[in-house]
Amino acid sequence: MKYVYSFHEGNKDMKELLGGKGANLAEMTQLGLPVPQGFTITTDACRSYYQNNEQLENDIINQVYEKLEELEKISGKQFGNPTHPLLVSVRSGARSSMPGMMDTVLNLGMNDAVAIEFSKITNNPRFVYDSYRRLIQMFADVVMGFPKDDFERLFDQIKEEKQVKSDLELTADDLKEVVEIYKKQYYKHAKSSFPQDAKVQLIETIKAVFRSWNNDRAITYRKLNDIPSSWGTAVNVQEMVYGNSGETSGTGVAFTRNPATGEKKLFGEYLMNAQGEDVVAGIRTPQNIDTLKEVMPNCYYEFQKICDILENHYGDMQDMEFTIEKGKLFMLQTRSGKRTALAAIKIAVDLVKENKISKEEALLRVDAKQLDQLLHPAFDNEILSKKTAIAHGLAASPGAAFGKIYFSASDAKKAFDNGEKDILLVRVETSPEDIEGMSIAHGVLTVRGGMTSHAAVVARGMGTCCICGCGDIKLDEKLKTLTTKEGVVFHEGDFMSFDGATGNVYGEKIPTVDANIAGDFKTFMTWADEVRTLGVKTNADTVKDAMQARKFGAEGIGLCRTEHMFFEPLRIFNFRKMICATTKEEREKALDEILPYQKTDFEGLFRAMNGYSVTIRLLDPPLHEFLPKENQDIDVLANSLGISFDELKQKIASLKEFNPMMGHRGCRLDITYPEIAKMQARAIIEAAIEVEKENIKVIPEIMIPLVGDLEELKYVKRLIVETADEILKQNNSSISYKVGTMIEIPRAALIAHELAQEAEFFSFGTNDLTQLTYGFSRDDSSKYLKDYYDKHIFETDPFATIDQKGVGKLVEIASRLGKMTRPNISLGICGEHGGDPKSIEFCHKLGLSYVSASPYRIPVARLAAAQAAIREKTND
Amino acid sequence: MKYVYSFHEGNKDMKELLGGKGANLAEMTQLGLPVPQGFTITTDACRSYYQNNEQLENDIINQVYEKLEELEKISGKQFGNPTHPLLVSVRSGARSSMPGMMDTVLNLGMNDAVAIEFSKITNNPRFVYDSYRRLIQMFADVVMGFPKDDFERLFDQIKEEKQVKSDLELTADDLKEVVEIYKKQYYKHAKSSFPQDAKVQLIETIKAVFRSWNNDRAITYRKLNDIPSSWGTAVNVQEMVYGNSGETSGTGVAFTRNPATGEKKLFGEYLMNAQGEDVVAGIRTPQNIDTLKEVMPNCYYEFQKICDILENHYGDMQDMEFTIEKGKLFMLQTRSGKRTALAAIKIAVDLVKENKISKEEALLRVDAKQLDQLLHPAFDNEILSKKTAIAHGLAASPGAAFGKIYFSASDAKKAFDNGEKDILLVRVETSPEDIEGMSIAHGVLTVRGGMTSHAAVVARGMGTCCICGCGDIKLDEKLKTLTTKEGVVFHEGDFMSFDGATGNVYGEKIPTVDANIAGDFKTFMTWADEVRTLGVKTNADTVKDAMQARKFGAEGIGLCRTEHMFFEPLRIFNFRKMICATTKEEREKALDEILPYQKTDFEGLFRAMNGYSVTIRLLDPPLHEFLPKENQDIDVLANSLGISFDELKQKIASLKEFNPMMGHRGCRLDITYPEIAKMQARAIIEAAIEVEKENIKVIPEIMIPLVGDLEELKYVKRLIVETADEILKQNNSSISYKVGTMIEIPRAALIAHELAQEAEFFSFGTNDLTQLTYGFSRDDSSKYLKDYYDKHIFETDPFATIDQKGVGKLVEIASRLGKMTRPNISLGICGEHGGDPKSIEFCHKLGLSYVSASPYRIPVARLAAAQAAIREKTND
Repeated sequence: MKYVYSFHEGNKDMKELLGGKGANLAEMTQLGLPVPQGFTITTDACRSYYQNNEQLENDIINQVYEKLEELEKISGKQFGNPTHPLLVSVRSGARSSMPGMMDTVLNLGMNDAVAIEFSKITNNPRFVYDSYRRLIQMFADVVMGFPKDDFERLFDQIKEEKQVKSDLELTADDLKEVVEIYKKQYYKHAKSSFPQDAKVQLIETIKAVFRSWNNDRAITYRKLNDIPSSWGTAVNVQEMVYGNSGETSGTGVAFTRNPATGEKKLFGEYLMNAQGEDVVAGIRTPQNIDTLKEVMPNCYYEFQKICDILENHYGDMQDMEFTIEKGKLFMLQTRSGKRTALAAIKIAVDLVKENKISKEEALLRVDAKQLDQLLHPAFDNEILSKKTAIAHGLAASPGAAFGKIYFSASDAKKAFDNGEKDILLVRVETSPEDIEGMSIAHGVLTVRGGMTSHAAVVARGMGTCCICGCGDIKLDEKLKTLTTKEGVVFHEGDFMSFDGATGNVYGEKIPTVDANIAGDFKTFMTWADEVRTLGVKTNADTVKDAMQARKFGAEGIGLCRTEHMFFEPLRIFNFRKMICATTKEEREKALDEILPYQKTDFEGLFRAMNGYSVTIRLLDPPLHEFLPKENQDIDVLANSLGISFDELKQKIASLKEFNPMMGHRGCRLDITYPEIAKMQARAIIEAAIEVEKENIKVIPEIMIPLVGDLEELKYVKRLIVETADEILKQNNSSISYKVGTMIEIPRAALIAHELAQEAEFFSFGTNDLTQLTYGFSRDDSSKYLKDYYDKHIFETDPFATIDQKGVGKLVEIASRLGKMTRPNISLGICGEHGGDPKSIEFCHKLGLSYVSASPYRIPVARLAAAQAAIREKTND
Repeated sequence: MKYVYSFHEGNKDMKELLGGKGANLAEMTQLGLPVPQGFTITTDACRSYYQNNEQLENDIINQVYEKLEELEKISGKQFGNPTHPLLVSVRSGARSSMPGMMDTVLNLGMNDAVAIEFSKITNNPRFVYDSYRRLIQMFADVVMGFPKDDFERLFDQIKEEKQVKSDLELTADDLKEVVEIYKKQYYKHAKSSFPQDAKVQLIETIKAVFRSWNNDRAITYRKLNDIPSSWGTAVNVQEMVYGNSGETSGTGVAFTRNPATGEKKLFGEYLMNAQGEDVVAGIRTPQNIDTLKEVMPNCYYEFQKICDILENHYGDMQDMEFTIEKGKLFMLQTRSGKRTALAAIKIAVDLVKENKISKEEALLRVDAKQLDQLLHPAFDNEILSKKTAIAHGLAASPGAAFGKIYFSASDAKKAFDNGEKDILLVRVETSPEDIEGMSIAHGVLTVRGGMTSHAAVVARGMGTCCICGCGDIKLDEKLKTLTTKEGVVFHEGDFMSFDGATGNVYGEKIPTVDANIAGDFKTFMTWADEVRTLGVKTNADTVKDAMQARKFGAEGIGLCRTEHMFFEPLRIFNFRKMICATTKEEREKALDEILPYQKTDFEGLFRAMNGYSVTIRLLDPPLHEFLPKENQDIDVLANSLGISFDELKQKIASLKEFNPMMGHRGCRLDITYPEIAKMQARAIIEAAIEVEKENIKVIPEIMIPLVGDLEELKYVKRLIVETADEILKQNNSSISYKVGTMIEIPRAALIAHELAQEAEFFSFGTNDLTQLTYGFSRDDSSKYLKDYYDKHIFETDPFATIDQKGVGKLVEIASRLGKMTRPNISLGICGEHGGDPKSIEFCHKLGLSYVSASPYRIPVARLAAAQAAIREKTND
């Protein structure tokens, strides 16, 4: 097996084997650009390293030595030879770029003997000992794992001793001293001397870089970016060029366009007489790339020319590293640059305008997930960069908000009613009763709860910025105070700012800028709509959400959760009366009071969706969710219901369940209380008739939740159809409506051929389906799934991205069985997965009709659907 | 479509169409036995009736009239004609006998005119008016639904007026008066006269019998006996013969053998000058059939001859109805008789000995479910029949027990330690902490909880008699009293008796007789073992259970739940210490204390199962189940752990979950706390090594619960294998062990081909699999499933009998995928379904290797497996 490739043997399409950096170094070599030569040890070698209990096979070591000899021939230098020494860098390079996550060592091949001779040859001992001390420092950290601080502290001590501020002011002798001190420090930790054998240095470093694939940083980064741990990293060994070899040397990084705004203009920084990470590490303040034009015009213009070549060659904005050694430019890296969503869109649209790429290529250039950033207000970056967060939580729902803090939904509401506009809601955790307070708040902060807590899910649905699980702060809800870890106390009405994109909390007002979805964004999304075949609908329970979703391009409502409509104070009372009813008559009476509200809700949705379907799900959650929990609230309710406290308390206790997720909810409620389904069907159909009179086209779809058996579906469907048809007949109306079912119970998927006899559409509720297919309670699993991630048992969260093997299998089975019975059955998905690009691609491949996502995920879904269609075509 | 068959057109194999009664009347006709002629309206007609909104199609009515004409020709009488009247009976008759559940009307065709003429012709007006008043009474009840009591009260009034005790003492005139009074009463309810048109009487009655298929009694009976509502009933119209036509007439019921004991001797009762249900209704005390030999020897010997013919013809004990009209014997019904389990076994074995049936036929003759009755002590029926229950609950676990009542597990234990043997435990509900008290009690009674409550499941496992959900009684656990609905108070130490087969509670000591599993039972079970191919293992956690299961024929332990071993006081403390540990070291220390106990447990099981496999499941339930719930218990524990009450309380709160069924349990515990799996693996392997030294063959199988992903399985398996192999190596032992997984998460079934890479066996945990496949929480579903049964949405309990379409589909998928990867993989089932005959048949068909059932279900499983094998062969 070939484990090592010289740069001239590879090309840009070999990323899987050579990693991104290696493949691009090879490509630049092929293009004839000035690249210091070297070789790449493949990702296969990395996998072999892990399979062999973190040992390098002899075969690999021998291949490295072979390529090293070749490099010695090319460079005319020799590794470890003091008189014409070859020094090399060793850098990681995975298939997908993981900037800063893994390790690098420079100047390998340096040792005491080389330092002496090399000083003579170069007549630049300062440069040589600077290189040596860097080697020891990096080797000690990366290879040996000694505390980095130890060496940095020693370096700072020397600077203090010598009374200099910048490392540049240290002399050759000073640096020689540093090397001696470093070697002692090294011995102290290692109980052996710093290795003088260049090959030992090299092989140990290669192993260390392979090891760094599994450091904590890298694991976390992979998890966040869905990179499988099985990929492994490649290792690049490259002849050193010396940016630290004097005043006409330097090193820098640059982008072919502005990665923040997308502006077409070279963007970057450099440092003279510096090496490697100095620019990024901030040892000195780097210079803007534009100034290089004055300092070294030749180098600048050459670099600009290379930039053009690379951008044209790759058809994308490039992120490059370069080094200048005594006035000569070398390219050390090029890759497609990371960019903000704003920049990504502008660059993609500009490249199409410049005829450099096609629309379809442009669509693939933007990470669909990133679009979210553009749809929310954001802080002004200039201002933000000067602020320090006072606490940090989970970035649960994007966007930025400032305002006065309130500690209860009712206090927030009161302030709102008194004309306060800028409201932030801070709670230990939220419950359905907080919905109204959340809807008027610009941002929500909770102390407890994870990415799928109530606050997070509801806030994302509303597009409201939200930070969850912020354990840094303490709340005293009675005193209405918030205390930071540092002991700073905030009171009700104090200003704060929340950054939902980072999870940062600020103790002051920071201004925000609004989202702009016109211009390039609009152009880009139009292209997406041209190619996608998957429909995109929205999950929306309110007219506000529905309107927002339409603005973002939703083609109908795929899921309206009727229960969310019951929490307004006026309604909840009647709803609670319904729950506490002891006879069918009492229950019907309470439902009659709710009917007009429900009807009005649906009218609003039908108007907002003129000509698009509105899929309304019947009441789903267990009834106890609607009842008060605190004794004082129970007392209030008991009084207004005219029953005793004890009676109500007992009623609430009787509704308590061991596993409410698998309890009395969904269609099970309609089976016990048919009058609920009848009321809801009536509200839907009466609303439809009303709105149609306004010459608005209504397409009502009634969806039955939590079905697991044909008889359940038949029973509830009959309730709906009998009610609906009677009303239509009375009103002489010919509105047609559909009745369908959620597929969210594993059994429903397995008997989908039966369900399709009755159901005119299926909507996959993949939230519940994931819970039941895995047996993971969403409310509890975050605790133990943490261990799953830590121990590499799971790499991705099945609630965020659909599990294709299990849950996806059920979706596939149900789709196939459903079509067998009813070939034209409409198939959609309405769980959180409906807004996740990977899951959307899966839905596209399965041939579903549409995905339904929360309003702020609509553009994400449109783009992801387009990308899925393009990828499918490309793979055909 | 042919809806009506004359008796001479049918035969015994047409039960589906003609119902059991109709098919057998036809068969007896074919055999030339004296059967009053008539015709049967098919079950197709019943289905048509329900499909047409409870209307009879004209086609059916016309076919009835045709057959009626034919009957008139055969009998030489005419329906509704006063001078030579044909009177008929109308009786229900379903495919499977449902005794007493549906309705019957006799003497149809009688009216005022017929009564007058018929009195003249027969010269027996007493008989005629007796028949007429019976008709009105039955018609009013069955067809019109008027209160039965009304008519019975009027009849009693007349008897009082006339100062007679028996209906036989009423004269013709008295009965004429009854008819008049009845007609008035009829008019009062109906606002119209009793119908004089014979055909109206007939058609209305046929419809009423069809309707009676869906009365509450019938529905309940079907549910208990797994009879689908789609079968419908047939209706038999038969010429009347008159058991009430004088001193030489009569009617009776008889069995060819004793249905209680199986003894081969005619067994039955009769009443002279009586009709229809009089014998069963207990109007007068019936005579033993033996006395008929003296009263009417000819009839007796003819009947005896017919009995022999029928038993030989059907090859089974027959249950017959007959009527004697003026000295002439008529057969009105024959069917295979219901019998006790004891009788069923004896009859089956005897019939084989008499060469009347084959062993295989014999095996099919006994209802496997019934066997349970034989394995437990029972009350002496003679004594029991004289006792009255003081309360009634769910018959949760069979058997009978008397003893002194105790209201807590610890009080029961104390009494036991003081030498008390006859102990009954009475609790509001039981929890795992009550296990020790339950294990020494002869019977358990709970106020709350259903058939799958903790008490029910544990008691069935132990073979202890148990009554659950006995809401009739009130407990005061502090005062230690039990109060019946009538207000009778029982104190601790008072005697009571529980009948786990009926759910009856008695307020006194009733002696029991022990089970006998030798003799016929043993013979019969040996035959079952000869034909079955499915293995039968047991679920057992204690040596006692394991020994019991071996006695009942278990071939190994299919499921040992290790957590049940942790509830003894000595162990629970260390287990709680383990749970409350804050570091790995603390946890390991607590586990070290538990290790010796676990080892001893496993040694006992290995010894009991010499040569048979012992499948041990790692710890499964969520940890909070092991922690105390009451403040005072928490206080005690906190003290002994040396932590504060608040600290412990917080720990307990932190373990609380929203949906514990889908929470931190099963292999998820081992992933968080690998030391638990290691301790358990160590205990198993060390125990195996210990026991093997005694020359006992040990076959340990280690089972990982709640696996849903290959990586979970790999992780926990590695913990086990590393631990086990090290111990084996240290001990120089060559014991081989297997590692397998439960399949109880839907996803596990869907990825079984992956799991089989690591798992050497699958055990289907169909309890949890049913919960997750349906999304039904077992702890909560009984509340809402009640509505499912009431509304005919479900007919059977998916937790009792495996759902073949959904859960069974997953079992089938997993079996297929598992075998694909590992063709010789062992497949078993260890949920409650493992003891359910229908589910066992399903497992046989799927080709599973074994079922595992609680000890007292082992014989049931052996027989059910044999029956499945026979049925499969027959169907081939």
